Amino acid sequence: MAERGRGWARAVRGLLLDVSGVLYDSGAGGGVPIAGSAEAVRRIKASGLKLQLCTNETQATRENFVRKLQAMGFDVSVAQVTAPAPAACRLLRERGLRPHLLVHDDLVPEFAEINKTNPNCVVLGDAAENFTYANLNEAFRLLIGMEKPVLISLGKGRYYKETDGLKLDVGAYMKALEYACDVQAEVVGKPAKTFFESALAELGVPPEQAIMIGDDIVNDVGGAQQCGMRALQVRTGQYRPSDENHPQVKPDAYVNNLAEAVDIILQEL
Amino acid sequence: MAERGRGWARAVRGLLLDVSGVLYDSGAGGGVPIAGSAEAVRRIKASGLKLQLCTNETQATRENFVRKLQAMGFDVSVAQVTAPAPAACRLLRERGLRPHLLVHDDLVPEFAEINKTNPNCVVLGDAAENFTYANLNEAFRLLIGMEKPVLISLGKGRYYKETDGLKLDVGAYMKALEYACDVQAEVVGKPAKTFFESALAELGVPPEQAIMIGDDIVNDVGGAQQCGMRALQVRTGQYRPSDENHPQVKPDAYVNNLAEAVDIILQEL
Repeated sequence: MAERGRGWARAVRGLLLDVSGVLYDSGAGGGVPIAGSAEAVRRIKASGLKLQLCTNETQATRENFVRKLQAMGFDVSVAQVTAPAPAACRLLRERGLRPHLLVHDDLVPEFAEINKTNPNCVVLGDAAENFTYANLNEAFRLLIGMEKPVLISLGKGRYYKETDGLKLDVGAYMKALEYACDVQAEVVGKPAKTFFESALAELGVPPEQAIMIGDDIVNDVGGAQQCGMRALQVRTGQYRPSDENHPQVKPDAYVNNLAEAVDIILQEL
Repeated sequence: MAERGRGWARAVRGLLLDVSGVLYDSGAGGGVPIAGSAEAVRRIKASGLKLQLCTNETQATRENFVRKLQAMGFDVSVAQVTAPAPAACRLLRERGLRPHLLVHDDLVPEFAEINKTNPNCVVLGDAAENFTYANLNEAFRLLIGMEKPVLISLGKGRYYKETDGLKLDVGAYMKALEYACDVQAEVVGKPAKTFFESALAELGVPPEQAIMIGDDIVNDVGGAQQCGMRALQVRTGQYRPSDENHPQVKPDAYVNNLAEAVDIILQEL
């Protein structure tokens, strides 16, 4: 792997890391860290490389998310997290939109300052257990009753891996509502270009000096490459061998896990 | 209306009727008949016109469905119902497919004779309250774990109207699974051409002598027209005024309800 690495690992000043499937596998009890990832984050920090977490996580506020990661041994801070909910709040304010939220209970505090009376849009996150038949019908009825339905989706992932197996991600439910209402959702989060640009701005590094590391071939790798970054796919998390034959997206390299990526990158510093 | 009717109502020998939204509005307690529809069905019968119900109903066996309609005053029999589940059973047998069922509890008996061990496909119906987060994840995991995922959907409706409001139909959940698994579902039921052809065969009338009457602009009207039938849209059930500007589908006529359609058709006999 070190051989293959030399080309893509040069002239790096900052790393964007996906979290679920790269740092840890989510699931019951908060999930479990992926072997070597906590140590890899420490080594990135010690090396002087800049680090930003670029996540579509919408099952918790950033504060609680970071607390969970810290409890698993990851040395990260709230300022190092770029997540869809704050980006959605900016968009809602700019456009005077009042959301009906179909999101995880634990994400609701991120929208505390947003006016939610008499909704004129629906914001969809990875609502998990809140994806009930009743809640989906409610969001659908609100949308189809709007003169101009506005559906904002926090990511468009197809699925992700938890400790007890694969789970449908927000993108699947987004497609259901898009079809039922004949609308196109606006995606906030990966792979939206504006979202990666926010993460790069927070990283403070131009795209050509940054590498994205993720387990999702389309949302992590494809999205980052479209912003001019290099991107690696790890063979952890939701990675499946068939990803290596993806018709549209080809990572700059595959690595077995984050630890291996960091080994190679640090050798080139 | 009678004026407008003269063209499209000529030379009719049989009628295909959609059920939910044409004969009755479904909902809590079994639903309520649409005013004038039971009398309209009696008048069709008395006129000598042939009659077949062509429904995407998948929340009950045909036996229970007909019992419910009879209790509401409709003079119909099981042999007069063309529904997706029996069509799906034929397809499963022909292709040696063993389904995992994500359907309404009350539909399960239609699949009593089908081998369901070690599933190699997923059959999706309007599962209603069975569309839980857990059940959707289970169907998804089975599908994505198959070497060649086969998803069979009993209809692809976007939504329908119940007495307490609009509900997401099976098509929305079909789109969710299609997206998550990157597969295309095979649709059994309206608007599939083979399904209308089965209904016509059971009606015993060629398409050019049959009229389809439904409340769904795409699945009833569009589907029937593609088989060479005339098709009316009623302004009951899931009808919405915006349907009259549909970019692809234009019914042969609009009628306010089934009773009005039958008035016009019988005048032309």
